[in-house]
Amino acid sequence: MDYKKRREKVFKVIEERGLDGAIFISPENVFYFTGAPFVKGSVGKILYFAKDGTASIIVTDLDYQEVVDFVDTDALKIVKTEFGERPSERLKKISGKKVGFEEQHLSYYLYDYLRKDLELQPLNGVAEKMREVKDEGEIRRIEEAQKITERALDEALQSFVKGMTEVEVASEVERRMRLLGAESYAFESIVASGERAVYPHGKPTKKRIEEGESVILDLGAQVGGYCSDMTRTFFVGTPRRVLRDVYDAVVQAQNEALKAAREGITGKELDGVARSILKEFGYDQYFGHGLGHGVGIDVHEGPSVSPRGEAKLTTGNVVTIEPGVYIPRMGGVRIEDMVVITGGGSRNLTNFSKKFIEI
Amino acid sequence: MDYKKRREKVFKVIEERGLDGAIFISPENVFYFTGAPFVKGSVGKILYFAKDGTASIIVTDLDYQEVVDFVDTDALKIVKTEFGERPSERLKKISGKKVGFEEQHLSYYLYDYLRKDLELQPLNGVAEKMREVKDEGEIRRIEEAQKITERALDEALQSFVKGMTEVEVASEVERRMRLLGAESYAFESIVASGERAVYPHGKPTKKRIEEGESVILDLGAQVGGYCSDMTRTFFVGTPRRVLRDVYDAVVQAQNEALKAAREGITGKELDGVARSILKEFGYDQYFGHGLGHGVGIDVHEGPSVSPRGEAKLTTGNVVTIEPGVYIPRMGGVRIEDMVVITGGGSRNLTNFSKKFIEI
Repeated sequence: MDYKKRREKVFKVIEERGLDGAIFISPENVFYFTGAPFVKGSVGKILYFAKDGTASIIVTDLDYQEVVDFVDTDALKIVKTEFGERPSERLKKISGKKVGFEEQHLSYYLYDYLRKDLELQPLNGVAEKMREVKDEGEIRRIEEAQKITERALDEALQSFVKGMTEVEVASEVERRMRLLGAESYAFESIVASGERAVYPHGKPTKKRIEEGESVILDLGAQVGGYCSDMTRTFFVGTPRRVLRDVYDAVVQAQNEALKAAREGITGKELDGVARSILKEFGYDQYFGHGLGHGVGIDVHEGPSVSPRGEAKLTTGNVVTIEPGVYIPRMGGVRIEDMVVITGGGSRNLTNFSKKFIEI
Repeated sequence: MDYKKRREKVFKVIEERGLDGAIFISPENVFYFTGAPFVKGSVGKILYFAKDGTASIIVTDLDYQEVVDFVDTDALKIVKTEFGERPSERLKKISGKKVGFEEQHLSYYLYDYLRKDLELQPLNGVAEKMREVKDEGEIRRIEEAQKITERALDEALQSFVKGMTEVEVASEVERRMRLLGAESYAFESIVASGERAVYPHGKPTKKRIEEGESVILDLGAQVGGYCSDMTRTFFVGTPRRVLRDVYDAVVQAQNEALKAAREGITGKELDGVARSILKEFGYDQYFGHGLGHGVGIDVHEGPSVSPRGEAKLTTGNVVTIEPGVYIPRMGGVRIEDMVVITGGGSRNLTNFSKKFIEI
């Protein structure tokens, strides 16, 4: 990962905007610029860029050793806080006056604390926009995470029997992701069957997966800090006829969107491609979410592939294409691939079969 | 869970502070007040309390069905956004002018968007402070999550053999947590051995756990929306003498803190009890984090049991007590129990042995 090159872009923004410095507090952004390891949901490290071209990571003793061992300490200053001192307190002692910040990540609380001494200016998504365009190394990690997910699911399906519970299926896939090399999960696994398959975010329960039901599995692994994201829908025994029809509609909607995905199309247009197919089938009112989203260090990041996605897709974007149809009291179907956008079209990073599978 | 009673407290705050309403966007807080399911890290739902005594959950189509199925729709209004409309846009259409908000959770971005039309006032941790005091139902869920974690670890240890990798151990425990009834993991499991055991947040890697090393396992399950949190340190074969001594010191520091935990002591004082024991042993400079934290819907919440914990502990707090010693290039030891504070002392929710275990 060329962390240095990424940091140079921030220094350029600081210069262009006449700032004295810029801070990043999102662990994902700190990782993006430095390689410093992170646990999802934890905060505490502050990355400070000064206009003189130096970058410092402010950490408490808790994170100190791991940061020192994993980042380039020749290029980055590691600032350890005093006992009981917060990184935000230390920041005030070392930072310039006019400081850019991540408006999407800084809480009002921290904003209010810092603005008492600093002149804060939103960076307007500088890091997030950089992260939308992946380099080869990033794509390799995402692809590796995806391969692990596919192999894990494939292996788990070998031992799948009717009447298993949703959690049993989840535990089997997750265990295999770990053993195949995932350092973590990209997100909380979704396993939702039968009437529960209408919950796009349904977490696995002790519910048994029964004859005639669809089961949606939405799974992802994390490798080298990067996520994968894939959904497949299977059927236990022979499903109701309508679910079979829904499956065909979702496959076709996804296929057309996959064909349309290329540099220059907006997220909104691409979403429209899938939505119009589902409309032809009469299922569009059951497609209650956007078609997709970017994937990277976060499993949900830019660009948006939804009715709100005004930006044009560009080479290096990695996005999901995941139409879904959820019919209350009946069941649901979602199929999700992850593609990297190229000049002439897109490359599908997902290879798992989409054939109608009865298990 | 008495969601209604919790909501009544918010209505009272609205009245006391002369507000027109209050919003909650943190999925954990929305769950706390309504029971609406959530996936960690996801946002999108807004809970709006109006001064007229009505409460509404604003959701997109994505979350609509799950919310309808899981919350009390007699007491709560479910507001579904239009196609492509954000919950924050809808909020502006239904809310009053003077609105309280969660200063710790609202991003500057959303704050800036909302303040254009609303008069925003920080709620100063209203929900977070309520959540610090657990009721019987909450304690039961935390205890259940803890029991599952203990049983999973116990079972996994039966099949532990020298030379296993950190991820193999993690996958084994996690799988069993799922099968024993965890709906999810409380956090990303920590398995860190040998020199890696000096990273308090070390995620499992393919590193093999070798003779003479300590291995720290920090694990938690989620049950009914509530987390558990436990750490144990084991040894493979006979460890270096100093690690044995460190283990004794950490056990003793924890024991004294467990004895001192009671209503009325501040987090800072309790932290000091453990820290002074480690000082007697000469290891206090290697104890680089706070002694503990509250546990509930979040695995890290209030009250703080650290040098910054000025507040007095109170009956119903559930906090961890987790001294740790990490010696660079040598190894680490951390032992963590979770207790509920009572008037006369505390009740330990953790029953897993702390005997020095060589495996």
